[in-house]
Amino acid sequence: MNNDTIDETTATGPDNTPGTPATESRAASTYRPGLEGVIATRSAICCIDGEKGRLSYRGIAIEELAEHSTFEETAYLLLYNHLPSERELKEFSTLIARQRHLPLSVSEAIKKFPVGMHPMLALQAAVALLQGEDFYADDVSSPIHNIRRAISLIAKFPTIVAAFDHCRNGEDPLPPVSKYGHAENFLFMLMGDPPDRAVAQVLDKCLILMAEHTLNASTFSARIVGSTNASIYSAVSAAVGALSGSLHGGANERVIRTLYSIGSADNVPKYVDEMLDSAKKIMGLGHRIYKTTDPRAPVLKSYIPGLLDKVGGEEFKELYEIATELEGEVEKKLSHKKIYPNVDFYSAVVLEILRIPIDLFTPVFAVARSVGWAAHWMEQVDTNKIYRPIQEYIGDLNRPYVPIEKR
Amino acid sequence: MNNDTIDETTATGPDNTPGTPATESRAASTYRPGLEGVIATRSAICCIDGEKGRLSYRGIAIEELAEHSTFEETAYLLLYNHLPSERELKEFSTLIARQRHLPLSVSEAIKKFPVGMHPMLALQAAVALLQGEDFYADDVSSPIHNIRRAISLIAKFPTIVAAFDHCRNGEDPLPPVSKYGHAENFLFMLMGDPPDRAVAQVLDKCLILMAEHTLNASTFSARIVGSTNASIYSAVSAAVGALSGSLHGGANERVIRTLYSIGSADNVPKYVDEMLDSAKKIMGLGHRIYKTTDPRAPVLKSYIPGLLDKVGGEEFKELYEIATELEGEVEKKLSHKKIYPNVDFYSAVVLEILRIPIDLFTPVFAVARSVGWAAHWMEQVDTNKIYRPIQEYIGDLNRPYVPIEKR
Repeated sequence: MNNDTIDETTATGPDNTPGTPATESRAASTYRPGLEGVIATRSAICCIDGEKGRLSYRGIAIEELAEHSTFEETAYLLLYNHLPSERELKEFSTLIARQRHLPLSVSEAIKKFPVGMHPMLALQAAVALLQGEDFYADDVSSPIHNIRRAISLIAKFPTIVAAFDHCRNGEDPLPPVSKYGHAENFLFMLMGDPPDRAVAQVLDKCLILMAEHTLNASTFSARIVGSTNASIYSAVSAAVGALSGSLHGGANERVIRTLYSIGSADNVPKYVDEMLDSAKKIMGLGHRIYKTTDPRAPVLKSYIPGLLDKVGGEEFKELYEIATELEGEVEKKLSHKKIYPNVDFYSAVVLEILRIPIDLFTPVFAVARSVGWAAHWMEQVDTNKIYRPIQEYIGDLNRPYVPIEKR
Repeated sequence: MNNDTIDETTATGPDNTPGTPATESRAASTYRPGLEGVIATRSAICCIDGEKGRLSYRGIAIEELAEHSTFEETAYLLLYNHLPSERELKEFSTLIARQRHLPLSVSEAIKKFPVGMHPMLALQAAVALLQGEDFYADDVSSPIHNIRRAISLIAKFPTIVAAFDHCRNGEDPLPPVSKYGHAENFLFMLMGDPPDRAVAQVLDKCLILMAEHTLNASTFSARIVGSTNASIYSAVSAAVGALSGSLHGGANERVIRTLYSIGSADNVPKYVDEMLDSAKKIMGLGHRIYKTTDPRAPVLKSYIPGLLDKVGGEEFKELYEIATELEGEVEKKLSHKKIYPNVDFYSAVVLEILRIPIDLFTPVFAVARSVGWAAHWMEQVDTNKIYRPIQEYIGDLNRPYVPIEKR
């Protein structure tokens, strides 16, 4: 009669001998740790071909989007499933620009956030707080309202990241500027200087390339939380939390630390030999899905020479040399293993050249990925069935309660 | 070489004709919406036998725990997998009592939270903020540190809930009192009066009964976020978010609204007939797993007469009459369908008699379930494999990028 219970779950069979996994009788298949190879959703948002190294959003190749589109247009495509007309794009961009301001309650709360916390956790908390100005957040039945919420949330991500960065440094956050595009305004709020348009364009393209990538742990979290009919704020906040984990986000931070630790391009062959000899990982190379080049990496790499010409910095030129040398050296020594740079590798170099603080690399990624999370949340609540998998019970059965004086 | 990429995911095969689901070749089985019947983890924490209506924590039946144990002792059992000795329990209880205070940064931030937000979202945000005082939160490799974090977090849940409730009402939060037990102190912080010990004991037993229930959507969220090596704050915050959804938490709120709307015990038969005629759900009756009585319901019900004697209130006596009448009427009219009260049904009545504000019912549940979430997070990071299921792509393929002037 009623399935809406707090414990929306199902579980295991009884009376197994202790130590034997007790699995509910209607288990659909054997246990696969991490749900590897298990289909957890149907989706029409993004498609990856790991064999051929292809990635598309709503069927359009990301190379085309990176070359011709903008972050705003790509966000529109991901949310609405079609490219906008000129008028639609203008309205959409205006809507985003107008909604960048944080509600006063949220910006005041951010000022009180613990200054030492990781910016990803600050982002996780702030996204949840945004529910405070959406009194009907628990009604997720209207696709029109849901898409408006998505736009409002995407608009506010850069403002939150920049505001927390200023607050933790004891500075006042800079207000967003509506005449700037999304990436341009983000750079302005972070740095305080009017951004160079060509430089902002590189960040814009980074955001396009990072906007969506199917069912990784963060997007999966957003879908599971959304499947309870939780608000977009709860779902996307959870996704930020998942991305904060070192096995998910954070790889781009470690790429930069690796490149600096190598020190110079001359040291690369020795470094690679050492890593191979000790069978260690090299950050930013190789990808779980792509059996060939991660299609985002060469696109990101292609921006770097022009960016270096524009912003200068000898240390950045050296960084880029180390990166290309490392890529070449690994390709030479491990050609049979098909180890190529992934998205983290050159995005880290780009963000470093853009002088983004290193612990904001993952938050910048989240600014881009907010679009994918929002799209998946909308798709989830639209075609919803609550997630409630089963477990295999491997614990004790029928233990007695022993009174405390007899323990 | 390196699997630690931001896009820890895998996806779908290419070149399918549009409209045909494109599933990666190594899909382990067919798609099951909501992962129904799919084993998503191994666990040794909790076991449910839905056929026989049995629930146990670490192998001990919840009826025994509710009768003999305390919240603190049950939390110890769930975290450590054994009942504590007298000394261990004393140390553990002291540890919890001493860690109830919120860091100043977090209590100051809560004062600035939007007053109109749902307490569950406030809780979701505040839990994330607690990372701010744990500088090494991203190192989850030490089981000893992890269990300390779990204890600290469980200790602070009631403080957060009570603090936000006071702040939204323009009052100063009450500081926790270390001489009180967990439930007693929670009631004190919520109500401001020294709690009656017998009344607090009923809440204590409620917390025991709600502390854990295997792999529902909130616990599953905690495990997925934890699987990225995200901190306990990120993982449990995400779980709170999942519980905030109306398909998961919130059922107990709707039970109370239903009972009050029925008005009197005399109206129950007519109400049940109307619901049956229109094939509508009756809140708090029936459970997805239990094919017989939810074992928690009769235990909760048994506390109510004594509680009513203690705290009085004619309206509560009437509420209880409506509830028992409703249970009996449904049992009579639907005996073939095996529809029995679930945990939400009588817990809602208990919390109402305890005069808990109705929108704090789910937060109270979260105070209890924080133990289960923490235990699952610890189990996850201890035996970790990151979650990255696959999707079935049902969108368009090979769409061209059409220039804006040609759209």
